[in-house]
Amino acid sequence: MPLLSRRSFLAASALAGLAWPAGASAPFATAQGPGVYHTKLGDYQVTALYDGIWTVPIDDKFIRNASASAVDEALKAAFLPPRVLPISFTVLLVNTGSKLILIDTGTAGQVADTAGSLLDNLKVAGIAPAAIDTIVISHFHPDHIDGIKTKDGDKIFPNAEILVPEPEWAFWMDDGNQSRAVGAVLRYFRNARRIFADIAKDVRRFKPGAEVAPGVVSMPAYGHTPGHTAFSIHSGKASLLVMSDTVRNPYLFARHPRWQPSFDMDGPMAVKARLRMLDRAAADRMLVEAYHFPFPACGHIERRRGGYDFAPSMWAPL
Amino acid sequence: MPLLSRRSFLAASALAGLAWPAGASAPFATAQGPGVYHTKLGDYQVTALYDGIWTVPIDDKFIRNASASAVDEALKAAFLPPRVLPISFTVLLVNTGSKLILIDTGTAGQVADTAGSLLDNLKVAGIAPAAIDTIVISHFHPDHIDGIKTKDGDKIFPNAEILVPEPEWAFWMDDGNQSRAVGAVLRYFRNARRIFADIAKDVRRFKPGAEVAPGVVSMPAYGHTPGHTAFSIHSGKASLLVMSDTVRNPYLFARHPRWQPSFDMDGPMAVKARLRMLDRAAADRMLVEAYHFPFPACGHIERRRGGYDFAPSMWAPL
Repeated sequence: MPLLSRRSFLAASALAGLAWPAGASAPFATAQGPGVYHTKLGDYQVTALYDGIWTVPIDDKFIRNASASAVDEALKAAFLPPRVLPISFTVLLVNTGSKLILIDTGTAGQVADTAGSLLDNLKVAGIAPAAIDTIVISHFHPDHIDGIKTKDGDKIFPNAEILVPEPEWAFWMDDGNQSRAVGAVLRYFRNARRIFADIAKDVRRFKPGAEVAPGVVSMPAYGHTPGHTAFSIHSGKASLLVMSDTVRNPYLFARHPRWQPSFDMDGPMAVKARLRMLDRAAADRMLVEAYHFPFPACGHIERRRGGYDFAPSMWAPL
Repeated sequence: MPLLSRRSFLAASALAGLAWPAGASAPFATAQGPGVYHTKLGDYQVTALYDGIWTVPIDDKFIRNASASAVDEALKAAFLPPRVLPISFTVLLVNTGSKLILIDTGTAGQVADTAGSLLDNLKVAGIAPAAIDTIVISHFHPDHIDGIKTKDGDKIFPNAEILVPEPEWAFWMDDGNQSRAVGAVLRYFRNARRIFADIAKDVRRFKPGAEVAPGVVSMPAYGHTPGHTAFSIHSGKASLLVMSDTVRNPYLFARHPRWQPSFDMDGPMAVKARLRMLDRAAADRMLVEAYHFPFPACGHIERRRGGYDFAPSMWAPL
């Protein structure tokens, strides 16, 4: 009858290809298709630019207040393999019509071999790195700031003014704080200095809450890091809530917003910011974007038993 | 405190842009980014190619067994506007390594102004239309077969063998059936003849259930049309269930699988095929694709209260 049973489905698989003469070989694609997605936002255009993905093995300590088996269960529910966290990177470009603003900067190939496609995708979007007017940084973790410079220390966006949250700068550039850091956090301190030390005079610090660029309003969302900042973008009657790392992989942290991953420096404070933002986004049916959501990382938040869910926007022509 | 209230969120919007000097104008993108997404499937590569979207006003008769307000409720739950159905088109390219197989052919700009980007995206994928070896057709609705020919009647894929379901051919090419048709269905009869009449000798008909190309197994899923056919693709241990139009917009028809849209020629039979396929896909956690799912139209099916849900695959590097 119509549908193959599971058994015949697999049997067909085993037989596939045996009875067919080989024709001319067709080359396989060697790289993923471009990751460039435009959305009209009032008089602005925002563009999601895919930088890639980092798949990180996770251990029992990954979530401070959930077991490894609970995490595996959440991954399975999202049709993802166990014990591996896929960390997706999507950079947002805001075109106000007169300014090109980049929110965070991708990895520039310095975090994982499977990430670093931002510049390729920016090229597909028809934008030269030199055309970027402003870079707005959410926080100082390497996957958000490494795209400011190449490995050799050259600025990738030579004409961009760089704006960073004041409390983030204060924390990571403080020598006393660095002297107390160990492990990954010590690496983050050193990396922040690698990126910022010799360009400090070009970096403008803002107080979270301020409008940092035309229509781009910052908002404190501390906890993930001491100065971690989210944004809202406004044009005409349209708005977009840029959640930054307040909610990371949605299959884990929207669905289980109270989980405290080791990535969050202050777990309880990050949970508080996360719950507040998810609740507001769901209640007001806001259009949202987040750096680690699956590309194109744009959609809505809806309530779900025990937490929230990410509802991706339907891919549509411009 | 951290998050803006809804009121200040909107107030910030009203103020946006007033205080900022205008810089050089940055051009807006005039078209959406490319829609090309590759997935490895055993030794094969399958590529989702976006053709666009058709937004169709819907009236009280759109669903035979559900009210307009129930449909609006489902659209709202998916963060979509009321009274309009977004019909997305994604064509699947199967590269076996030796053959290039296209499953359905897009609209070739003959269905809606906002659709017809298949050839542009095929070019982004590096494939010339002349390189396509085989076209496999699921059914004879215009949005699946119009891409075989230009408006002027020229073949778009000049070297492709065309394979169609035998019962679909028998139904639509029968003059008696056409003589009894009216309205949209009559237009479909005429369109099927426009496409197929003068190339009938080049069209090979297959019996649904047969393997139609290496690793591509057809399966009857009648109801949407009399010979509507789905497919499964197999390579090595990997499989992909190509649902064709068994499940159309997932926010309506996966979530409400018993709804009978006017598009389904035999409503009860289509519901039966839909339920059977969704149940199997969910139970066996199959990788699925469907022509009208949101691009890149690839993911899984999960149970949900009252029906099923589509869980899109996470966008990842190849």
